Amino acid sequence: MTTRRLSRAEIVLVGTELVCGQRTDKNGPFLAMELSRAGFEPARITMLPDWRTSVAAEIAEAMDRGPALVCVCGGLGPTSDDVTREAVAEALGVGILIDGAARAQVRGRAARFGDVIDEAIDRQAMVFPGARWYPNGIGVAPGLSIRRGGTTLFLLPGPPDEMQAMFRNAVLPEIAGTGQVRFSRILRTAGLREVAVAEMAETVMSNWQALSVAYLPAPGLVDVVLSSDDGPKLDAAASAVRAALASGVYAEDDRSLEEVVGALLAQRFERVVTAESCTGGLVAELLTSVPGSSRYFPGGVVAYSNELKQSLLGVSRELLDRHGAVSGEAATAMAEGARSRLGAEWAISVTGIAGPDGGTADKPVGLVFHGLAGPAGVEFSRHTLGGDRTAVRTASARLALDLLRRRLTLS
Amino acid sequence: MTTRRLSRAEIVLVGTELVCGQRTDKNGPFLAMELSRAGFEPARITMLPDWRTSVAAEIAEAMDRGPALVCVCGGLGPTSDDVTREAVAEALGVGILIDGAARAQVRGRAARFGDVIDEAIDRQAMVFPGARWYPNGIGVAPGLSIRRGGTTLFLLPGPPDEMQAMFRNAVLPEIAGTGQVRFSRILRTAGLREVAVAEMAETVMSNWQALSVAYLPAPGLVDVVLSSDDGPKLDAAASAVRAALASGVYAEDDRSLEEVVGALLAQRFERVVTAESCTGGLVAELLTSVPGSSRYFPGGVVAYSNELKQSLLGVSRELLDRHGAVSGEAATAMAEGARSRLGAEWAISVTGIAGPDGGTADKPVGLVFHGLAGPAGVEFSRHTLGGDRTAVRTASARLALDLLRRRLTLS
Repeated sequence: MTTRRLSRAEIVLVGTELVCGQRTDKNGPFLAMELSRAGFEPARITMLPDWRTSVAAEIAEAMDRGPALVCVCGGLGPTSDDVTREAVAEALGVGILIDGAARAQVRGRAARFGDVIDEAIDRQAMVFPGARWYPNGIGVAPGLSIRRGGTTLFLLPGPPDEMQAMFRNAVLPEIAGTGQVRFSRILRTAGLREVAVAEMAETVMSNWQALSVAYLPAPGLVDVVLSSDDGPKLDAAASAVRAALASGVYAEDDRSLEEVVGALLAQRFERVVTAESCTGGLVAELLTSVPGSSRYFPGGVVAYSNELKQSLLGVSRELLDRHGAVSGEAATAMAEGARSRLGAEWAISVTGIAGPDGGTADKPVGLVFHGLAGPAGVEFSRHTLGGDRTAVRTASARLALDLLRRRLTLS
Repeated sequence: MTTRRLSRAEIVLVGTELVCGQRTDKNGPFLAMELSRAGFEPARITMLPDWRTSVAAEIAEAMDRGPALVCVCGGLGPTSDDVTREAVAEALGVGILIDGAARAQVRGRAARFGDVIDEAIDRQAMVFPGARWYPNGIGVAPGLSIRRGGTTLFLLPGPPDEMQAMFRNAVLPEIAGTGQVRFSRILRTAGLREVAVAEMAETVMSNWQALSVAYLPAPGLVDVVLSSDDGPKLDAAASAVRAALASGVYAEDDRSLEEVVGALLAQRFERVVTAESCTGGLVAELLTSVPGSSRYFPGGVVAYSNELKQSLLGVSRELLDRHGAVSGEAATAMAEGARSRLGAEWAISVTGIAGPDGGTADKPVGLVFHGLAGPAGVEFSRHTLGGDRTAVRTASARLALDLLRRRLTLS
């Protein structure tokens, strides 16, 4: 799909904890995002344990692939499992020696933290011939860079705060202007399945060359990311795709669905309350995850049992007996009950079967009903959702918010 | 540090969004943790964009390195950017054809979600000669496995719920018993800070050699992972650390805090209701994330506004005026109100300042009160929590559950 030739960048993350699943890495996404913004195309992120031979082999292969940049994070500290400097020396076939100025800087930083100055501390001041080194303004270990052919190799510390500061202070100024400008646009959709979004987008996409598209699905949501080297062409294509996706698009920036719904309510000085069964509080939780949500969200009810659907929301026993708690009728009554009893312009409700158990032939796992009560009356929608319990609940909660969004956008 | 020679495993994650920093990957840590538990040593995690040639090259290199397992996630869907099957065919030099049985399964799954059956949908049923395929019980795309020399290559879907289900149902049974045994023990704690946990653990740890320990903190929780090659030594050490951590330990297996609390309630045939302010429904959401929670959770109230604290929970206007909504008095009254109005043996409440705004010198961001009402009366606790809005809310919700857990464990 890619027709651009951007300068490529590779990222290598060193640390046994990263490949054991014990820690979720933050350096990869940070570097990927920053390098993309600087006009480089991240072509690979590799996580390796603290094994010198593996790190050396990967760095040798990365240099062979010849990207514009290779950023290596981690393994620059003083302990015996910090092997990155030696691995790079091995991969490049160069020596490595303590640099006097770097040693003075390292000793100064280490003293500040009360470390005893010994051989292990001084190891952090080892530099390759022809390399540049960068002082660490937050921790101790300096960073390094060295050029080979068209590739610049950066070695950065592993702790995210140290890495980010060094990236901003040392790497960015050095790579500024060397990447290529790339334009991208995001269209965030709710209430549509990925295949439907792709079909709608691709009917208009075929008219546009030199454009790449990615679909990023999450339960209840699909982001469409368009990118191109050609700004005006991208704008025209984004407008066409935007029109094809119509009311499915809830944002064209990084705002979440709950932020968009909150902003729509706040603009109108209106409020919403919630009545939840299968989502168990998730709709309220999403709404209140946004700072300032008390302006438009007074509260809600989690009526998991039929008894509480009756006592807290006024759903009648006869309705539950006749239609079941998972029905359009129940969703409607829950929304009406919440609107009148909790007191707000809008009420949204959810009732469904999140699974894994509780499904029947008539009412399978994944079946959910949403109710929306407002000044002009009440409506409900019905969906059959895929995924496990968490995915069904998450998609259900977002579809409840989306039902309100679509109503607020229309009226 | 490693003295064992474990069978190695490599993980390849395919998706342009992963190397652009747009999505934080969850599949790598899941697979790394599961493969470690099954006795394999994760030797590399590679993230690649949806570029067929890069994916093919990486898979060819991974096969050359000859690990016991290569798990590839992502790129098995129906859209044009799903390239994993073709890339693997290229890397292995094999053909790829639509399998009749796989097609029937794929069409059935797709129809269930209302997708239009076309060529794109059918592409997901392509299988290599000699490969096995695994139905997708959650989404649509099947998984695949193929052996070459001593290496088994698994292709798994990218959405985490689909991948995890397929890993458990198809991959684990196939690799069971082929890894090497390594011993580890987990002690999961709640309500303690990481430094406190480490201090408590390390007073007894100094007596034990050849033992490694990791502290994995999350808001409100700290997991302690002990590992060793020596099973009996590990058991003795774990018992000593367990005793030092005392009532802080809520599980010694992979159960979550909400599962443990639910099991304690279910054992006693008792129920809990919730009254939440700053957590906005998160306590109810955690409780109902556990299948079967309707046995012990009838429901709860999110009383975000003071009006709803009065009308839904019966908290008096005078109390709110005198002590404020963020106070031990309010937490107590919320728990009592929920217990009597919603009707359960236990009620837990949370009120606090999640931030980023709303803090004062007296009542800073991060200040939270928890109430617990039960058959013998009502109590409250007070904490000052660090972190951003999400961290404060998450830790607050877990501390509410932990307050109940400690009470249920005592009585």
